[in-house]
Amino acid sequence: MREYPTLAAVDLGSNSFHLQVARVVGKQLYPLDSLKEMVRLAAGLTRDRKLDEACQARALDCLKRFSERLRGFPTHAVRVVGTNSLRVAKNAAEFLVRAEAVLGVPIEIIAGHEEARLIYLGVAHSLPASDNHRLIIDIGGGSTEFIIGTRLEPNKLESLYMGCVSHSLRFFPDGKISKGAMKRAELAAQTEIQSITTEFSADQWQEVYGSSGTARALDRILKLNNFSDGGKKEGITLAGLEAFREYLLKVGDIRKIVIAGLHPDRAPVIAGGFAIMFAAFKELGISRMLLATGALRQGVLYDMLGRVHNEDMREVSVRQFMQRYRIDLVQAARIESLSLALGKQLLANFPDEETVEDALHLLSWAARLHEVGISVAHSGYHKHSAYILGNADIPGFSKMEQMQLSQLVLAHQGSLTKVSEFLTNFISLAQSIALRLATIFYRSRTNIELPPMRIQAGNGSCKLLISQAWLEHNPLTETLLNAEIDAWAALKINFCIQGTSSSKEDFV
Amino acid sequence: MREYPTLAAVDLGSNSFHLQVARVVGKQLYPLDSLKEMVRLAAGLTRDRKLDEACQARALDCLKRFSERLRGFPTHAVRVVGTNSLRVAKNAAEFLVRAEAVLGVPIEIIAGHEEARLIYLGVAHSLPASDNHRLIIDIGGGSTEFIIGTRLEPNKLESLYMGCVSHSLRFFPDGKISKGAMKRAELAAQTEIQSITTEFSADQWQEVYGSSGTARALDRILKLNNFSDGGKKEGITLAGLEAFREYLLKVGDIRKIVIAGLHPDRAPVIAGGFAIMFAAFKELGISRMLLATGALRQGVLYDMLGRVHNEDMREVSVRQFMQRYRIDLVQAARIESLSLALGKQLLANFPDEETVEDALHLLSWAARLHEVGISVAHSGYHKHSAYILGNADIPGFSKMEQMQLSQLVLAHQGSLTKVSEFLTNFISLAQSIALRLATIFYRSRTNIELPPMRIQAGNGSCKLLISQAWLEHNPLTETLLNAEIDAWAALKINFCIQGTSSSKEDFV
Repeated sequence: MREYPTLAAVDLGSNSFHLQVARVVGKQLYPLDSLKEMVRLAAGLTRDRKLDEACQARALDCLKRFSERLRGFPTHAVRVVGTNSLRVAKNAAEFLVRAEAVLGVPIEIIAGHEEARLIYLGVAHSLPASDNHRLIIDIGGGSTEFIIGTRLEPNKLESLYMGCVSHSLRFFPDGKISKGAMKRAELAAQTEIQSITTEFSADQWQEVYGSSGTARALDRILKLNNFSDGGKKEGITLAGLEAFREYLLKVGDIRKIVIAGLHPDRAPVIAGGFAIMFAAFKELGISRMLLATGALRQGVLYDMLGRVHNEDMREVSVRQFMQRYRIDLVQAARIESLSLALGKQLLANFPDEETVEDALHLLSWAARLHEVGISVAHSGYHKHSAYILGNADIPGFSKMEQMQLSQLVLAHQGSLTKVSEFLTNFISLAQSIALRLATIFYRSRTNIELPPMRIQAGNGSCKLLISQAWLEHNPLTETLLNAEIDAWAALKINFCIQGTSSSKEDFV
Repeated sequence: MREYPTLAAVDLGSNSFHLQVARVVGKQLYPLDSLKEMVRLAAGLTRDRKLDEACQARALDCLKRFSERLRGFPTHAVRVVGTNSLRVAKNAAEFLVRAEAVLGVPIEIIAGHEEARLIYLGVAHSLPASDNHRLIIDIGGGSTEFIIGTRLEPNKLESLYMGCVSHSLRFFPDGKISKGAMKRAELAAQTEIQSITTEFSADQWQEVYGSSGTARALDRILKLNNFSDGGKKEGITLAGLEAFREYLLKVGDIRKIVIAGLHPDRAPVIAGGFAIMFAAFKELGISRMLLATGALRQGVLYDMLGRVHNEDMREVSVRQFMQRYRIDLVQAARIESLSLALGKQLLANFPDEETVEDALHLLSWAARLHEVGISVAHSGYHKHSAYILGNADIPGFSKMEQMQLSQLVLAHQGSLTKVSEFLTNFISLAQSIALRLATIFYRSRTNIELPPMRIQAGNGSCKLLISQAWLEHNPLTETLLNAEIDAWAALKINFCIQGTSSSKEDFV
């Protein structure tokens, strides 16, 4: 991956959208510029979980402004991530098409677990060095992330499906803050948190940081109103939260909240955010929380920087998965090397170099992980591999990358009609041909001597030139190669095998 | 499980149906009676993989005869298993309804892996004791099983999707045995076997046994015609197979095969069976194979016997899966104990005792395995658990049992509409209620003191009587219990919670 002097990250959150630009100096990032808009995507989710037109319009307007700031950035120097509201919206795919058109950069939807990892990465870089176990709580608009880690390493990551926007809408729909409503909001949050209590309770950490807008607002309110133990202690305390709770119940209406430290923009979602925070304090036994400045967008930037410095988290995850699922490492190496060689030939004439680089990365990961499904069952293992790769939490991967990995692995065996849509893309087609052929040649799982061969693919066709003499000496492989002709014909792709007499063809 | 003096097993194979009756003496079985009919189910599979009417009629006729022999057997003393043709036939479900009506006993479809395990169990009981690693090859009508094991323990199990019926139809459709057709049949078989060569090659075993009708026929032909090294060596040899191959090519037509040792019933499928056997010899480096008398049906009988003697293979598998997927054993024990207590109350008035016993077994397994999916990802883990339990090779379980396990686990969390069909059955409903409630009470994963409670379910309703005082002290659990009312209402099931004042209600 290339090195860029400036990187940009965009976080399409459920409450607000953020753009962060930073300058790269060695392995450090220095913030250059940032933009923030309260788009409140989560508030635009209808009952049947669709983003309504109004919130889509707000979002696109905001992205139009962001796109101006991103002009001139190379594609690989920008990363745009979407979180909970885009994870759950049923019409997210259609919205993304419009959003990408406005923004001019691809948007990645990330899973809750991956969001938690990136938040930790951003927060950890903003905190003083320490060997303490740190609990980070990030109350977003639509989800809340809990992470325990030490230095730059997260040890436990959880994402719960509740945030300040969704919780406010659910429990205070008419704006009224009654005692009963507050109690219900707190109980619901506590019930959610209960599923992770044993993993995140007070004996598991030494200090607690809050990293979201909700935490920032609560910290300022408690400080400016002397709520926290008479204003003597820094940070958010249980006593301080109780004092603010009394204030909220006394005011009794979201629209009437006017208090030092609270920006009017934040007021509509502070009651829900408060209930989640208060529940977390009670359920996990927290007495004091400090404020952290880092957040998801900084994590995204540090993650990009890692990719540049060959510390790509995806690479680390692939290696971990190979261990966890006890992959046959020798066979994986054979398949990886041959599929990359074939993939390079197939993509040799593709115009965009960076796309080819990305495609070969993905092919390498798929080659190394294509047998994870054997852990479930040998028969139909490619389907189980595809299931695991599509559904597992794989740190560093976006949802889209996981889907591509999953589809490519599904395509590597058996009939192709099940992945016909995936294969309409030339890159996916080339990757699939490469992976299928590699598994055919190494079917015996031994170090065979590969034949001289060349491969090329064009519009709806693929031609394999291969030593005729070798084919005749390897009738089993020939049988399997011939079966490929039918397999691809089902997609109207003309796969042909041309035996060559010369043994001086390029070797793969 | 009760002990029966006589057990019966029925094997609905792709080539022939077998019925085997045996007397139980301690832990041994003595064959009493057996029936066999060449139904050739695999030959009735149409292009779109449906069993045609003719073969269904043949099968039902045969089952009518078998049913007479099974009269008077208690349900739990009979086990009927279906193999490859019933695994792949798209109209298998409809056929099974008709077949069960005729036979009067439930039919279980077993996976290839499970078939291999049962074949080994049957074969191993028929062989002299030895510490040798034994390779067993069982060429069935629609699939071929390869097993390596020592004494009664199978170490490697594989099932390949080709058998003597399907291979004969595919490569000798017009009956002609040309040199080219034979070569193609052998190559196709060898290609299939290649995927397991490293695991089953000659360095992995010390002796080889064949256990199917194909092996028996080849053994007799080679012996009676002095094909095997001049008839001096016992069993099937490579030289003997080559001599028979020459004979087949010389005759050139399936309909003209008349040779000592071959029953006319076997003649139509011997060419395909031969090609698979010959390919296995060549690909795995076999020089001699002896004949084993045990087979799938004996394995089924010994497996039933194991269940009686508390050596239920399903129990062993559940324990293995708990280890493999690193289940939280303490939590699993909590959930198991509470769900069984609730399940017993719910099924207290169910008329059939044996059905209740089976239902509680399944509930216990589901309780212990419901968290296997956490290995994939924490969010939506119940779906991943359901996927693994539905797709994994779990020794001892039939396909149907796995599907029930999978559906029950899927039902234990979240919305119920996804399992509405499963829940039309009262047993499944009771199991699901029990498992859902158990996970609610133990949500905190700690040893809480359970409340006094009673539960009953009837037609479309379920009532939980529970100490009101306890509920008031446990508002989190109360919140979750109240959410159950809505969850079940979606299926028009009236779940109601009645707070009781007495603390003298029966304890669970």
